[in-house]
Amino acid sequence: MEFSFGPLGLYTDFYELAMAQGYFYSGKKNENAVFDYFFRTNPYKGGYTVFAGLYDLLRLLKDFRYSDSDLNYLQEQGFKSGFLDYLKDFSFTGDIFSVAEGEIVFPNEPVARIEGNIIETQLVESFLLNILNFESLIATKAFRIKQVSGGKSVSDFGMRRAQGLGSLLASRAACIGGVEYTSNVLAGKMYGIPVSGTMAHSWVQSFANEFEAFKTFAENNPENTILLADTYDTLNSGIPNAIKVAELMKISGHRLKGIRLDSGDLAYLSKKARGMLDNAGLHEVKIFVSNQLNEFVIKSLVSEQNAPIDAFGVGTEMVTGKPDASLDGVYKLASVNGLPKMKISENVEKITLPGLKNLYRYFDGEGNFFRDGILLSGENPETVNTLFHPVYPEKFTVVKNLRHELLTRKVFSKGSILIEDKKPAEIYRDLEQRSRFLPEEHRRFISPHLYKVGVSEQLSVLKKKLMGDLKNNL
Amino acid sequence: MEFSFGPLGLYTDFYELAMAQGYFYSGKKNENAVFDYFFRTNPYKGGYTVFAGLYDLLRLLKDFRYSDSDLNYLQEQGFKSGFLDYLKDFSFTGDIFSVAEGEIVFPNEPVARIEGNIIETQLVESFLLNILNFESLIATKAFRIKQVSGGKSVSDFGMRRAQGLGSLLASRAACIGGVEYTSNVLAGKMYGIPVSGTMAHSWVQSFANEFEAFKTFAENNPENTILLADTYDTLNSGIPNAIKVAELMKISGHRLKGIRLDSGDLAYLSKKARGMLDNAGLHEVKIFVSNQLNEFVIKSLVSEQNAPIDAFGVGTEMVTGKPDASLDGVYKLASVNGLPKMKISENVEKITLPGLKNLYRYFDGEGNFFRDGILLSGENPETVNTLFHPVYPEKFTVVKNLRHELLTRKVFSKGSILIEDKKPAEIYRDLEQRSRFLPEEHRRFISPHLYKVGVSEQLSVLKKKLMGDLKNNL
Repeated sequence: MEFSFGPLGLYTDFYELAMAQGYFYSGKKNENAVFDYFFRTNPYKGGYTVFAGLYDLLRLLKDFRYSDSDLNYLQEQGFKSGFLDYLKDFSFTGDIFSVAEGEIVFPNEPVARIEGNIIETQLVESFLLNILNFESLIATKAFRIKQVSGGKSVSDFGMRRAQGLGSLLASRAACIGGVEYTSNVLAGKMYGIPVSGTMAHSWVQSFANEFEAFKTFAENNPENTILLADTYDTLNSGIPNAIKVAELMKISGHRLKGIRLDSGDLAYLSKKARGMLDNAGLHEVKIFVSNQLNEFVIKSLVSEQNAPIDAFGVGTEMVTGKPDASLDGVYKLASVNGLPKMKISENVEKITLPGLKNLYRYFDGEGNFFRDGILLSGENPETVNTLFHPVYPEKFTVVKNLRHELLTRKVFSKGSILIEDKKPAEIYRDLEQRSRFLPEEHRRFISPHLYKVGVSEQLSVLKKKLMGDLKNNL
Repeated sequence: MEFSFGPLGLYTDFYELAMAQGYFYSGKKNENAVFDYFFRTNPYKGGYTVFAGLYDLLRLLKDFRYSDSDLNYLQEQGFKSGFLDYLKDFSFTGDIFSVAEGEIVFPNEPVARIEGNIIETQLVESFLLNILNFESLIATKAFRIKQVSGGKSVSDFGMRRAQGLGSLLASRAACIGGVEYTSNVLAGKMYGIPVSGTMAHSWVQSFANEFEAFKTFAENNPENTILLADTYDTLNSGIPNAIKVAELMKISGHRLKGIRLDSGDLAYLSKKARGMLDNAGLHEVKIFVSNQLNEFVIKSLVSEQNAPIDAFGVGTEMVTGKPDASLDGVYKLASVNGLPKMKISENVEKITLPGLKNLYRYFDGEGNFFRDGILLSGENPETVNTLFHPVYPEKFTVVKNLRHELLTRKVFSKGSILIEDKKPAEIYRDLEQRSRFLPEEHRRFISPHLYKVGVSEQLSVLKKKLMGDLKNNL
């Protein structure tokens, strides 16, 4: 099934349409515009961000059109007929340059660059931000969780408390961040994510007693029996009944796959449960846990408490990106008709970088991430020897002769997607490989070291000159 | 346009399908089941929750079916052909009882009750939770914001940082909570919400200078000109240019509607801007503000700083329900084939209430909310004189002769929606009326007074008896 519910041209902020109409009637409709997508802060007070959402964006971009019903609606809102005629045949005809999904990126980097006429590039702003901000938020959260899970399996159980249909994108992004399974069946079908699940308390309650409930479930799911052990009393009822059922299953040539703990102290209960299972000779029965998990709880269970847990089911906090709940990505104009543009602000960090830019990564002698560099698109990276602080150019770093890589590549052109449709798990494999070269000090949760991103001398000079021009023009 | 992208039967957690198949093959498929929807904690450390999402749930419930492609997918996941044949003709045939959308509700109340066969009631669990939890979270946030806005207009600007397609439900729920406009055009069309918006910094940047940008916008939108004043320098450029354009507009018989401030100190800048506009005789030009607003910032601007602001544009924090990002609603089995069921827990607050229940509200002599009472569905409320604490029955309250109202009413039966499709703004009007009778001490942000919810004696006795039976059965 395609991820689509009809044309998406109205999936935008009203002001985009108001501006588009303004450009249309003020002779600007064929002007060329370039916008940058970037964010200003890593989520979760972390040291990096995992970029995600790109393929969803590109796929949905093809549906960014207007039906007759949409045009009637816009007419009722006061839009003019000439502009509505223009929208009738609208499709996005521009080019998009972007870093790959699953790439590790940092604040203020031009992660994606959108080029086209000013109307089309303006109209897709809200839509692009909606998808890229959210999936990057969730992929980053999932990767933080995966990093501390001690190599154990992590599943997404979040649908029930996800933000409505945002759950579909959340499950995909969680998988990009390292989650292996999702409980969300529609997301599983749409994105090719393996689906999994166990049973709810209601299954247990619906039977005369817990043993009957467990036995019946095992009879119906002999290959995939995971018994929820905490409906009445984990250690006095749940685990003993699970052990009885495991013994019955052995007689019929099957094996109990696992038990799940969903309440109480998971460190204490998993150790007790492991002991009881092992005493019954059930060493192969795995322990699954769930209940308000996040990266901090999992890190403590794995690294501090040595809880004998085989798999984590993570829900709400992962799929909502709690407590941040959003990534602060923005979409800012960088050029019109070849003229570089910028926005000034009383806050120097909020001043944007003008012109067409590419993003490069520089590696040190051991192959680790050393610096990221933002260069003007015409610049030959071989001639760039120094990167300057984007706000305080007195600070600089020499990158001469360091191996570097272009991160922003063309991914969409003339209505076509130029990249492969990878499964989320494949994107995670790329991320996992790549992350080995991100030094540990950027990955820790508490006060991570700042990864430095610089600009080329040409870009630094251009920025300074434009600021002067703008101030003189006020 | 209908809110639909094809059949939604897969929009569920995998374990619901695994359990459904288990019920199907273990002779339970015609058993009658009753589930309760309730939550355990008010969001935002607040004193109440605004219930929302019901009509979206009921509307989408009609799409909760399976296509051939869905059934093929389930077959690949190992589901058996007899069960898949059953799903081929599946639709939800049960009854739903619920409080109205926009009602003010409290923790542990059975807000909705779902009755039907055990398969259909189980399958819709995740889907129901996904919608009701999220819309209630956002409606509550929006109402908190509206309550402190001093009667000023509030708009939803959140789409760009909302959680993917969750933005559509978020905009509806925000409107139920009191927001008057949304920037999200698709949500506006789907739900009949008035749409609005101004301009972005990119509009200003795309012109040779700010004055040209403002003048051109006004020429194209003479009836709805709101000028964004902070692209370069609010007080030295933005406001002076807006005043010049306002004067030009007067000449052509139009009026500048407003200016928008999107950065800097909004209290300081709004006062300065108001002074400059008033000095130019532009008393009618309104001041719109945006930029990371929430209920605390707005309360301070309105009540402490007397900022001369006419309208608030609220984005990220409202549509993501930050910092909570989720409501902890659950769906618990209350009865099977007429036998009351409950779940025990080591945490007494997590023990569920058994049996079919109705929710009543009791009012004091002034018409204010006094207590809510949970009664068994067979009970005559006229004979209930006392409400007991659900966990500590030593605590009780006399409610004899108090006016009361049944809150849980039948809203869905035999595949049909039994309630009116109200616009979000109509639901807000009901909420606003109702909220006047919620005493102030439950509405304050800091340590709100706990609103008390009791159970009837019959329910209290039933709960105690079932707990004893369950413990004896372990």
